[in-house]
Amino acid sequence: MVASKIIGTGSYIPKIVKKNEDFLTQVFYNEKNNIFPNSNEIIIKKFQAITGIDERRYLDKNLVSSDMAAIAAKNAVDDAKINIEELDYIIVAQNFGNVKHGQLQPRSVPSIASRVKHSLGIENPNCVAYDVVFGCPGWIEGVIQAQAFIKAGMAKKCLVVGSETLGRIADPYDRDSMIYADGAGACVIEASNENNVGILSTASQTFAKDEAYFLYTDSSFNIDEDQNIGYMKMLGRKIYEFALNNVPNAMKIALDKSGKNINDIKKVLIHQANEKMDEAIVKRFYELYNKEMPEGIMPMTISKLGNSSVATVPTLLNMILKGELENHQINKGDTILFAAVGAGMNINAFVYQY
Amino acid sequence: MVASKIIGTGSYIPKIVKKNEDFLTQVFYNEKNNIFPNSNEIIIKKFQAITGIDERRYLDKNLVSSDMAAIAAKNAVDDAKINIEELDYIIVAQNFGNVKHGQLQPRSVPSIASRVKHSLGIENPNCVAYDVVFGCPGWIEGVIQAQAFIKAGMAKKCLVVGSETLGRIADPYDRDSMIYADGAGACVIEASNENNVGILSTASQTFAKDEAYFLYTDSSFNIDEDQNIGYMKMLGRKIYEFALNNVPNAMKIALDKSGKNINDIKKVLIHQANEKMDEAIVKRFYELYNKEMPEGIMPMTISKLGNSSVATVPTLLNMILKGELENHQINKGDTILFAAVGAGMNINAFVYQY
Repeated sequence: MVASKIIGTGSYIPKIVKKNEDFLTQVFYNEKNNIFPNSNEIIIKKFQAITGIDERRYLDKNLVSSDMAAIAAKNAVDDAKINIEELDYIIVAQNFGNVKHGQLQPRSVPSIASRVKHSLGIENPNCVAYDVVFGCPGWIEGVIQAQAFIKAGMAKKCLVVGSETLGRIADPYDRDSMIYADGAGACVIEASNENNVGILSTASQTFAKDEAYFLYTDSSFNIDEDQNIGYMKMLGRKIYEFALNNVPNAMKIALDKSGKNINDIKKVLIHQANEKMDEAIVKRFYELYNKEMPEGIMPMTISKLGNSSVATVPTLLNMILKGELENHQINKGDTILFAAVGAGMNINAFVYQY
Repeated sequence: MVASKIIGTGSYIPKIVKKNEDFLTQVFYNEKNNIFPNSNEIIIKKFQAITGIDERRYLDKNLVSSDMAAIAAKNAVDDAKINIEELDYIIVAQNFGNVKHGQLQPRSVPSIASRVKHSLGIENPNCVAYDVVFGCPGWIEGVIQAQAFIKAGMAKKCLVVGSETLGRIADPYDRDSMIYADGAGACVIEASNENNVGILSTASQTFAKDEAYFLYTDSSFNIDEDQNIGYMKMLGRKIYEFALNNVPNAMKIALDKSGKNINDIKKVLIHQANEKMDEAIVKRFYELYNKEMPEGIMPMTISKLGNSSVATVPTLLNMILKGELENHQINKGDTILFAAVGAGMNINAFVYQY
């Protein structure tokens, strides 16, 4: 059985910092189009307590998602020390595509993956570049698809990128806009004949009954804004309950298939959606094994980087591997559990052996 | 070796017919933002002679792409006579997502695949639904990905849909808008232990040097229109030359891997991009084998349906299998070559044994 190994990682962290206090003068409306009775001080304090977000990053106004995708990709291929012409696939996870600053309509054609391939200057036509749309779990799904191509004998080296400018499709009158951030992360996955390394097992699910519309596109909460324009919207409470009820199970499916034990897990790298929710998910995951959640098991970047959708997990991984996340490291032999939840509603996970 | 068989097909042909003569009063500008000196009679006559398009179909104003995707999908699963809860994957090829009539911004979240799964009422969370963005060759790429999951032992039954409302992202002041049409097509692919049936071989390529921007998103040719809004644009002559130089080779790669002979091919189902271009591609493909292109080898729907992007190939296949295309049929034992070219620039092909 051929293994799928991560041989390089990269990320791009946008330069514009927006702090919670920068939202103090923003007028927030609720879903019934009324201004909140509470002061922004109270709204922001509550927001911080739940999400753990102190600040978030936005992409420079003159750049678009494919620009940062290409930088993260370049970092990953440099880190992997491969010849870029050897790549068989470039898979880019995205949901909103290239949205220019101040606009809301993406530049849908060509795909972000084609733009990344163009930016990297890859000549080889047999390097197939496509985008995958799978909500926030898109980057993990791209990794799972890369593994499928490797298992099927269709690829030896795949570049998997997650890139999104969530900040650009946020309704500024919606409190949830404070969650969204921009970012890009990437990795290179290679087929390997080594035993007991790389991706050990995966799980992937789509819940599309009522859940299909827990994250959706709709008009601004401020009815003075053009109601024909769509922004990303979420039913926060329903997502929270859904995630708690379903993500731990998907993580368990992946772990139980991996041949590894709950005690083998050294880190859980989970999509940076919301700190309280992420903690509750991981806590419940450990409860499924009658265990307490170990301290330091769940590295977090959300306080400084916000929720950058498909970019959070590869960025987190890259920061740990590059020694950029205090008190966290990954060593040879470590077993890592990756997991994500997001629009779809989609959930996925994989167990990885370093 | 497990085979991948198409066990059901479906399509949705939109109801609104727009004939060439309906463009007689449209003002057309060139890429330099000048009105064409020629009359529309001459423009349309030349257009018809090159593309072979007499009329095209547009989706009802109250529907969006995911609506017709769901209808095509339902037709395919009904045709396959499967229990929908047995599907492991729903793969939807799209490029512009759900664009409401009269608007240009897609409703990007949730994915079209999630919306299709929702519409079909599928409960099974292990049926993974995602969208793939790969230009017009997206549906064929979805088929190739389905085959990868089957080969990798990750899936037994996959639904692959192509759905697009190209008519909604066309710049009405651009002559090329007459090419674009709306449509949806789908198939169900199943793992099979039969020998010498199903997908025999595939080829897939991305050309992303200068070619990355042969199909692109840009402002209207009419400078009185909002120049911040993007429409699909094409460098027609460059695409023509590119396609002629590269698509026959990709078709040859697929055929030569299949173990079949050029004489075995009973039909070539090619993306309905442009009749003259398609004919030139298939003619040159046969020239690679020192053969003349056989009469009746290339069924066409473009005269009545226009270019509906990802939908043309599955719609063509479905129409032939259902006896809806005069003088064309596919019989048990026939070898069929599928091929497509489009934004990316992407090219793909597969050889299929009925």
